Amino acid sequence: MDIAQFVESSFGCWRSQRSVHHLAFGHFEQVISTIEIAPLGDSDEAVISLCKSNNIDPQRASHPFRMSWEGESDWDESESVQGTTILVPIPDPDDPKAGQLLRDQGYAETIPAIGKYHLTEDGTFILLTEYERAMAEEKIWFLNPNFRLRVSLIKTSAGSGVVTASFSSEIRSLSESKS
Amino acid sequence: MDIAQFVESSFGCWRSQRSVHHLAFGHFEQVISTIEIAPLGDSDEAVISLCKSNNIDPQRASHPFRMSWEGESDWDESESVQGTTILVPIPDPDDPKAGQLLRDQGYAETIPAIGKYHLTEDGTFILLTEYERAMAEEKIWFLNPNFRLRVSLIKTSAGSGVVTASFSSEIRSLSESKS
Repeated sequence: MDIAQFVESSFGCWRSQRSVHHLAFGHFEQVISTIEIAPLGDSDEAVISLCKSNNIDPQRASHPFRMSWEGESDWDESESVQGTTILVPIPDPDDPKAGQLLRDQGYAETIPAIGKYHLTEDGTFILLTEYERAMAEEKIWFLNPNFRLRVSLIKTSAGSGVVTASFSSEIRSLSESKS
Repeated sequence: MDIAQFVESSFGCWRSQRSVHHLAFGHFEQVISTIEIAPLGDSDEAVISLCKSNNIDPQRASHPFRMSWEGESDWDESESVQGTTILVPIPDPDDPKAGQLLRDQGYAETIPAIGKYHLTEDGTFILLTEYERAMAEEKIWFLNPNFRLRVSLIKTSAGSGVVTASFSSEIRSLSESKS
């Protein structure tokens, strides 16, 4: 599986059940959300602007997409958790299974971020992102075309300690799917 | 990493934080438990008996161990969840990274079970077990020597549908560790 296949498999609307383990306190957080992943054109203005702000030639972008989510956490039921972000894969010219992932809003900190991704031999997508005060590591893999799992870790910036570990089960909403 | 290294890395006492996603209902279950993993001798009577009941030469056993757990689920807080099981790896003579795993008590059904394991190039232990009415798939990997993650899936016996997906963060309890 290369990045094009991985991104195309992800297009559509997903119902996500997510558990966050706050490790220092042994605390559990539960989030139910809807995630929508939709393709963007290579010539989309937001894509070109994100490439330029990272000093990357927009022609290197491959399969950019928008991810939007809306959900509810049991930590604060009165407020819904929602957001949207643009993600732009920049494949490594020498390795079709690896590259950079630009995004206009990060996961651990809400600032633009550049992650490094690679796909393992069994089709798992692995993304490492360094922030100023933290490191994020994500693994995403498909069990079947309509079901995928995601494990996300937030580590201290030195990378030694894991602060939170979270797990998402994502089921494709066939009725709302665009693919 | 081979099975010997994986099992040796697992010896000790672990504090586990586990989330179970019951997918059909979008229900979350939370379990806090203590897991102890201790080596057994190759000549341990229970190991020999488990091999014989599976018609396997006990001399093929490598690094057998006992796993015991005790915890509390938020599904039934009045009752503690506890158990113990003996696990016996039987490495494949032709492939040091794969083999069978015998256990005297299964995960999806409480009957003896034989699973098939393999270790991926990045050191993830993957175990597949077929039961009469279900299939279980487990992935376990270490983030560092004192922290490991486990993803367990219970599928329908045909293997197409995922019934539950669970995620455990396991932190070594240094004070009680035997290694």
